[in-house]
Amino acid sequence: MTKIKFGIVGLGRIGMIHLDNLLQMGEVEVVAVADLTVLDSPRLLKRLALQGIDLVTTSYETMINSKTLDAVVICTPTDSHANYVEIAAKAGIHIFCEKPLDLNLSRVVEVLSVVKDSGVKLMLGFNRRFDKEFIKIHDLVEEGEVGTPHLVKITSRDPKAPSISYIKKSGGLFLDMTIHDFDMARYIVGKEVTEVYAKGAVLVDEKIGEVGDIDTAVVILTYEDQSMAVIDNSREAKYGYDQRIEVFGSKGMVQSNNNFHDSHRLYTVSGVETSLPLHFFLERYAEAYKKELQAFLSCLINGVSPPVNGQDGLISLKIGLAALKSIKEDRPVRIDEI
Amino acid sequence: MTKIKFGIVGLGRIGMIHLDNLLQMGEVEVVAVADLTVLDSPRLLKRLALQGIDLVTTSYETMINSKTLDAVVICTPTDSHANYVEIAAKAGIHIFCEKPLDLNLSRVVEVLSVVKDSGVKLMLGFNRRFDKEFIKIHDLVEEGEVGTPHLVKITSRDPKAPSISYIKKSGGLFLDMTIHDFDMARYIVGKEVTEVYAKGAVLVDEKIGEVGDIDTAVVILTYEDQSMAVIDNSREAKYGYDQRIEVFGSKGMVQSNNNFHDSHRLYTVSGVETSLPLHFFLERYAEAYKKELQAFLSCLINGVSPPVNGQDGLISLKIGLAALKSIKEDRPVRIDEI
Amino acid sequence: MTKIKFGIVGLGRIGMIHLDNLLQMGEVEVVAVADLTVLDSPRLLKRLALQGIDLVTTSYETMINSKTLDAVVICTPTDSHANYVEIAAKAGIHIFCEKPLDLNLSRVVEVLSVVKDSGVKLMLGFNRRFDKEFIKIHDLVEEGEVGTPHLVKITSRDPKAPSISYIKKSGGLFLDMTIHDFDMARYIVGKEVTEVYAKGAVLVDEKIGEVGDIDTAVVILTYEDQSMAVIDNSREAKYGYDQRIEVFGSKGMVQSNNNFHDSHRLYTVSGVETSLPLHFFLERYAEAYKKELQAFLSCLINGVSPPVNGQDGLISLKIGLAALKSIKEDRPVRIDEI
Amino acid sequence: MTKIKFGIVGLGRIGMIHLDNLLQMGEVEVVAVADLTVLDSPRLLKRLALQGIDLVTTSYETMINSKTLDAVVICTPTDSHANYVEIAAKAGIHIFCEKPLDLNLSRVVEVLSVVKDSGVKLMLGFNRRFDKEFIKIHDLVEEGEVGTPHLVKITSRDPKAPSISYIKKSGGLFLDMTIHDFDMARYIVGKEVTEVYAKGAVLVDEKIGEVGDIDTAVVILTYEDQSMAVIDNSREAKYGYDQRIEVFGSKGMVQSNNNFHDSHRLYTVSGVETSLPLHFFLERYAEAYKKELQAFLSCLINGVSPPVNGQDGLISLKIGLAALKSIKEDRPVRIDEI
Repeated sequence: MTKIKFGIVGLGRIGMIHLDNLLQMGEVEVVAVADLTVLDSPRLLKRLALQGIDLVTTSYETMINSKTLDAVVICTPTDSHANYVEIAAKAGIHIFCEKPLDLNLSRVVEVLSVVKDSGVKLMLGFNRRFDKEFIKIHDLVEEGEVGTPHLVKITSRDPKAPSISYIKKSGGLFLDMTIHDFDMARYIVGKEVTEVYAKGAVLVDEKIGEVGDIDTAVVILTYEDQSMAVIDNSREAKYGYDQRIEVFGSKGMVQSNNNFHDSHRLYTVSGVETSLPLHFFLERYAEAYKKELQAFLSCLINGVSPPVNGQDGLISLKIGLAALKSIKEDRPVRIDEI
Repeated sequence: MTKIKFGIVGLGRIGMIHLDNLLQMGEVEVVAVADLTVLDSPRLLKRLALQGIDLVTTSYETMINSKTLDAVVICTPTDSHANYVEIAAKAGIHIFCEKPLDLNLSRVVEVLSVVKDSGVKLMLGFNRRFDKEFIKIHDLVEEGEVGTPHLVKITSRDPKAPSISYIKKSGGLFLDMTIHDFDMARYIVGKEVTEVYAKGAVLVDEKIGEVGDIDTAVVILTYEDQSMAVIDNSREAKYGYDQRIEVFGSKGMVQSNNNFHDSHRLYTVSGVETSLPLHFFLERYAEAYKKELQAFLSCLINGVSPPVNGQDGLISLKIGLAALKSIKEDRPVRIDEI
Repeated sequence: MTKIKFGIVGLGRIGMIHLDNLLQMGEVEVVAVADLTVLDSPRLLKRLALQGIDLVTTSYETMINSKTLDAVVICTPTDSHANYVEIAAKAGIHIFCEKPLDLNLSRVVEVLSVVKDSGVKLMLGFNRRFDKEFIKIHDLVEEGEVGTPHLVKITSRDPKAPSISYIKKSGGLFLDMTIHDFDMARYIVGKEVTEVYAKGAVLVDEKIGEVGDIDTAVVILTYEDQSMAVIDNSREAKYGYDQRIEVFGSKGMVQSNNNFHDSHRLYTVSGVETSLPLHFFLERYAEAYKKELQAFLSCLINGVSPPVNGQDGLISLKIGLAALKSIKEDRPVRIDEI
Repeated sequence: MTKIKFGIVGLGRIGMIHLDNLLQMGEVEVVAVADLTVLDSPRLLKRLALQGIDLVTTSYETMINSKTLDAVVICTPTDSHANYVEIAAKAGIHIFCEKPLDLNLSRVVEVLSVVKDSGVKLMLGFNRRFDKEFIKIHDLVEEGEVGTPHLVKITSRDPKAPSISYIKKSGGLFLDMTIHDFDMARYIVGKEVTEVYAKGAVLVDEKIGEVGDIDTAVVILTYEDQSMAVIDNSREAKYGYDQRIEVFGSKGMVQSNNNFHDSHRLYTVSGVETSLPLHFFLERYAEAYKKELQAFLSCLINGVSPPVNGQDGLISLKIGLAALKSIKEDRPVRIDEI
């Protein structure tokens, strides 16, 4: 069996995770990496060399042109995604791209059209779809255990707000953070969203407000069948990454809980103490990142469509834009207004 | 010590609970009961006689006029509350009245004015304020354990929808059921609500829609400091009464859970099974009903103001009316519009 | 219906609980109390008078002779139980007696013989049999949910050791404290114990060792079918009363948990904190004490045998004596050696 | 940096786990494998070849002699451990060996002497010491959070009994299964055991009794300071691998819980359902197996002593032999009798 040749662009936190996971997959050969600053790190270079990766470059184009890649993993900042996807698609290379494709709706449409014409597979990095907790909830809902879903509740809180410079370029809370929850809202019950009402506030850090963003939000989504989802977000939960979903339906209710460091319970005169939730996405979704890439790999090997595709990205973006419009106009906004 | 003389009107489910609780209080003497159908039940009559209650009548006025009552407990249907409160107030009798005072705002204002002029104490039956779970959350929030509250989440679901005939007269989901949650939203963080956005649906039973009501709702409340509360309601949770509150703030988060039949965990090859939540308010709030009346009694004995008064009822009613207006006009509604 | 006339002797902690519970039972009339120091407490006397109890005496015999009692509740120290039971039995009065009947085996046999000849009903105060947690475990086991029981695990730890003077007269840890667990071991699986191995230590307080007792113990019981139970005891669990049972069997396992003050979970940067267990037996078994007396009352009304009788007391005493012998001789001891 | 050259002998379940973990360690080069049946599996051979392992043999001696190994991992059946350890030690090769070294005490002493003379490092595979749950308990105890430990409770139940043929050669429940718990009892509180009382039964499968073994056991260990541990074992817990530890002490108590498939809670009219524990050691201790080998590797790299050494194996074996003697002679047995 010939191994599938991968290139990866962007060796930030997520990029390194994907790289490590690729290196442990028997069917994969990582043949090239591109990263703006990789040449400045002798230690990383040595490590890449040890792994037998012979093309290390600062240029995405060089990577695409110099090697016969089967697939590329794109982990660069958002503003490069659209171009990089187009370039890979035109070169006939399958693409795994971190979300979102772009913050501009028409640009996303354009890119998806290029991808479609090229015939390559495009998978988007909605990693939470590969989290065992959420998969379990999804499966129980799909199997009818809660009956017809009436209400989905998603709690999604980060342990700490990112830097103001990051926030400025992020597209705002809804496109940067809630977009994962919008995808979850669709995935978890397999229904489409038709309307959004969003309410936001600046409660964590005034500076976030000064750059025109919010740090706390509650969003009500209405599905096509009038059932609802409600999402609550905060940029700063002091106790760690808070990622929970609850689905309530005609026959019952199912909840997932956070994942904790361990299960200990300490009883003393001052109370009963247990562990905190895993601190952030790197810990909580470590397994999900692996499974996500395995799913992509499996699509390449078996010639099937990716479980999360460009349309999924497009729809979540539309919900996010509707949420932004809702905040601005202080009213519920239908998705078909976007 | 002379005992405090109580009369009680309305011996439905709640009335009987209050009666039983009064009968176990050492400082109380129940001297009269009024109920439309009490004379039809020989068994109940016998029981009342055994307890030494010598005035049993179908007429509220008879009870008020025939006995030197110190206090009255009103547990009749909502549409009689306003009149009964006025009558008792004018007779100088302290009043414990089940919520709400009335579904009409100006009528409530009128009644509260009569009560004020009379100088009697009026306490409203927001029983959940006396639930140990919610008191604990309230106290931890007040002590600053979660820092400044950013988001309150209230889940409140009944095990089964009431009859359509009840629903018709109930004032609708918001004034009948959510009104407890509106009170909780104020109580739990000690802040006033300034705006309401409500979204409702008929997902449980079409007949509820046919009489102009909803059975499922999500409501976003905005507090005076821009922090938020989100309430979710359903008329039918098959697994039992679901009553939970979560408060998230700048320093952490605190949750209460439902109360369960028992704590058993059964592990078998098919999974791990635990008990269901207590079925409905009679079970869940049995202790709260006792503590509520004890609090009222304590106000009478110590001559202090009741912990839940007419203003609390008025404000919750306003929030409810704003929620109704929000649904009708499909937009967020400020409380000062009401 | 004539009410059943009760007398009660011994108004210590447990006596007061039983008195309060009797006073709330519609079918019961408390007509007399006997207590050595009751006449010294004006407040208590006033309270008893308010309740219409017209015979208050320091003498058990006076109470038995002066009133036509249907039943007596005995809550005095252990060393009076045997005599008091005999006196009541001979007077034809039904008896509810706190455990144990006596610390001396032949004396117990003697008393039970008197009771038997008298034809009165005798129920022993093994209150834990009326705890909803343990009843649930018992019922699930009886219904076969865990299959054939292989191992019973009982944890029973007090929050604080009693005074040394109490310990001296208590009969020691096994007859004072573990005796409840011995009864539970029989009740929970409905099987008889045939052998005991006990291991004890003085780890909490050296003074306990100095008066010849232990404060920490592990006891292995062997049932007639070779299945086993293991009990662990401590006189001092700083976090409160620890009362748990687990039954493991051929098809699965069932556990009960402690009862907690409330269900709150507080998440902060320092961890997740929950409530402590209810502090001691008065809180944990408050409901069980009520149900226990109701069960006794129900036996009187319906003329059936008590659910916990003298034999149950006798057998638990034998297991306790076997445990003492096991410690002394450092070997497993068969019950039939006692 | 030169990689550390590893050979591995025995490619059963545990061997394959260790092999996979070694292959993912950057500092390790697996240069040889020995296994009696490896040559019969073309698929495995291909996989080993893909990994660049060029020596694949059925002979342990061939592996030891043909390659310049730095370290060997021994995962063969117990009866080969002693010889293989001696051979490696004499060849100056560091050794990671699955427990136990041997079932015969004097043979173990002999082997440890050879190892000591050779100067190589020997680490034993007590994998549970590397489980995050137990490490947390250990650390909290060590930090004094529960005060002076009074009682350790270890529950250790397998999901299914092994085959009778396996059991025959296993050394029996105590040396095969409980030996892990004996090691845990020492590790978790850092104290030595001085006495053992063991009680066993055949409750799962009569055939286990027919070959002279037991399938259910309760063991009381006494530590040097008179505090105690109690272990309960079963060969068959239908609900999966049950691995829990609780430490009770003068200041409090700490418990670990099993690890579950996921955290979902499903509420329906029939009850609340959650996940089962992870099925068996391969799932539960997957991470522990990795950390264990990393710890061994770290000892080799840093030239320090292994955290679990031959003495640990020797002491656990002695406790196991004392348990066997206790069962046979039906009495508590001191470790210094062995």
